Amino acid sequence: MFHSGTHKVKETAMKAMVYHGDGKASWDDVPDAVLVDPTDAVVRVDAVTICGTDLHILRGHVPTVDRGRILGHEAVGTVTAIGSGVRQLAVGDRVLISCISSCGSCRYCRRTSYGQCSGGGGWILGNRIDGTQAEFVRVPFADNSTHRVPDGVSDENMITLADLLPTGYEVGAINGRVRPADTVVVVGAGPIGLAAIMTSQLFSPSRIVAIDLADSRLDAARKFGADIVINPDRLDPVAAIADLTGGLGVDAAMEAVGTAATFELAVQLVRPGGHVANIGVHGGPATLHLEDIWIRNLTITTGLVDTYSTPTLVDLVAAHRLDTSALVTHRYPLDEFERAYHEFSNAGETGALKVLLTQN
Amino acid sequence: MFHSGTHKVKETAMKAMVYHGDGKASWDDVPDAVLVDPTDAVVRVDAVTICGTDLHILRGHVPTVDRGRILGHEAVGTVTAIGSGVRQLAVGDRVLISCISSCGSCRYCRRTSYGQCSGGGGWILGNRIDGTQAEFVRVPFADNSTHRVPDGVSDENMITLADLLPTGYEVGAINGRVRPADTVVVVGAGPIGLAAIMTSQLFSPSRIVAIDLADSRLDAARKFGADIVINPDRLDPVAAIADLTGGLGVDAAMEAVGTAATFELAVQLVRPGGHVANIGVHGGPATLHLEDIWIRNLTITTGLVDTYSTPTLVDLVAAHRLDTSALVTHRYPLDEFERAYHEFSNAGETGALKVLLTQN
Repeated sequence: MFHSGTHKVKETAMKAMVYHGDGKASWDDVPDAVLVDPTDAVVRVDAVTICGTDLHILRGHVPTVDRGRILGHEAVGTVTAIGSGVRQLAVGDRVLISCISSCGSCRYCRRTSYGQCSGGGGWILGNRIDGTQAEFVRVPFADNSTHRVPDGVSDENMITLADLLPTGYEVGAINGRVRPADTVVVVGAGPIGLAAIMTSQLFSPSRIVAIDLADSRLDAARKFGADIVINPDRLDPVAAIADLTGGLGVDAAMEAVGTAATFELAVQLVRPGGHVANIGVHGGPATLHLEDIWIRNLTITTGLVDTYSTPTLVDLVAAHRLDTSALVTHRYPLDEFERAYHEFSNAGETGALKVLLTQN
Repeated sequence: MFHSGTHKVKETAMKAMVYHGDGKASWDDVPDAVLVDPTDAVVRVDAVTICGTDLHILRGHVPTVDRGRILGHEAVGTVTAIGSGVRQLAVGDRVLISCISSCGSCRYCRRTSYGQCSGGGGWILGNRIDGTQAEFVRVPFADNSTHRVPDGVSDENMITLADLLPTGYEVGAINGRVRPADTVVVVGAGPIGLAAIMTSQLFSPSRIVAIDLADSRLDAARKFGADIVINPDRLDPVAAIADLTGGLGVDAAMEAVGTAATFELAVQLVRPGGHVANIGVHGGPATLHLEDIWIRNLTITTGLVDTYSTPTLVDLVAAHRLDTSALVTHRYPLDEFERAYHEFSNAGETGALKVLLTQN
């Protein structure tokens, strides 16, 4: 492998999407991903995507991300190397890389709260350590941080289970305690809002209302299962929801944007005794009107996904009970990452939901 | 009964504590309580108390309370009249009057969310209709809004079950999901905080921490079951809780004051994945630091008590598994209501927890 200059470069350098601060990231030469700890795997990235959280990072909302960090926390790939402590994986295995790494042993992991892992995992990829937007990635705690790709499940479907669908399901539908016959509102119909809409249907609500300022996103919301859509530019959501629910409010309201205004709207839309599930990534505080809600028996939840539900979602996809592939609207080769970022961050114009980058 | 002037006055007027706005209430002559609806009972008030919420009303924090309203939503008394639709009560029965009236039939009552009753009940006594701080009181939906006093249970014990104990139990310990081995913090060691401390013990936490600025209240907190007490004038609670929990935070934090600062402190003290139960009555908003907590998987609850737990608490008291009588620190005859208010609202000096007013 050291015979030619080309191969030599391949041994010591790869390409990756590197965060540089001040809103900038670029497709750079970086050192190869290598095994560090015995529980690591190195995975060749076959398919990778960009998350709304990556845009929050670019905006400087996530102070844990240092300059020089390789971004990305979602991928499907092929194991190319395993450490001596890896027991469940072999070189050549095709795996989903979860956005959450799990040590498997801390008090949080032992209670399936992997997102809060205090043993060195949690959301670390593309945050505290280098991530998946690269040709290769080191995956710590590889046994507990990957899921095998079942036969017959496409990369398009699988990659949505790295972060997007578990987040919508756990932090939205489950935290919001959606129950049969509920009225559910989802504020924000971006990819995360759509994931909340898709997975809320697993609990058979009577109706799902999507709220967004972009008609293209409301069209997508309808396609993925919203029964009613509201564009606040044309219809006051508070009055519309009051009309719809006899003045009561919705059973569950989910915030899927990450702004104070949308969070405060979600709190306003919920009925007494209802649930507000915050899914959005926030860069600032919101006002909580305790003078109104102290008496209303609300439950407000926040959350980073734990990904405890990923096996369930994989089963649903494999059983053809859940098809998430239509979430992928744009495809690029890996070396067009900068263009993919540009088009994903202009989703209002490009209509991008999830963008898929693949390595041949 | 119309033979003498004295008796005639007794037929057409009674004494009651009337709210006059601007922080004022006085012990006035008012028209007698009478049956209005077929499901009403009239109850002679044998023992009655003052709630912290009444002080919030005096401060103008509860805009639903009109001037001229008789205050009070807790009492033990004797049924003196029943409407034609009352089936469970008879004249002469001794009953606890719950702070929550329940129509028994609306969508909320049928799911035991009596506090949110949309059929005309909920917290109405001493709020939307005349209350219990009077010689007699009209109790709507009497079958569902009272609990019979078991033999051998004192008025002192029973009256704490009208509001205080169910609130601490439902809105504090249950909403805060206290579990065996938990570390629990209660911010505010007034009567509601003490009720949260007492009822949290029903779920066997490892330790309960009470935080209050008044040492007399911290002494009471110790007496009622707090293992550790913190006076923020002498010890930074954030640092102290971090020390105590290895930097993690507590499993459940309860806010039992009703200010933005104490609510924000409770949110700060809880561990990732923990529960913040707001019990306090709030007159203004708080800041919710979503930029810190979106990733921490918190559950924040608010609530007016439903009193679905009152039968459970009555059973515990009757079985001598719960003794709340020591919460009653001051006793007065009914016609000293103004003095009782004065001494209750100066609890910092008088050490008053619950004040009991009795009619002979």
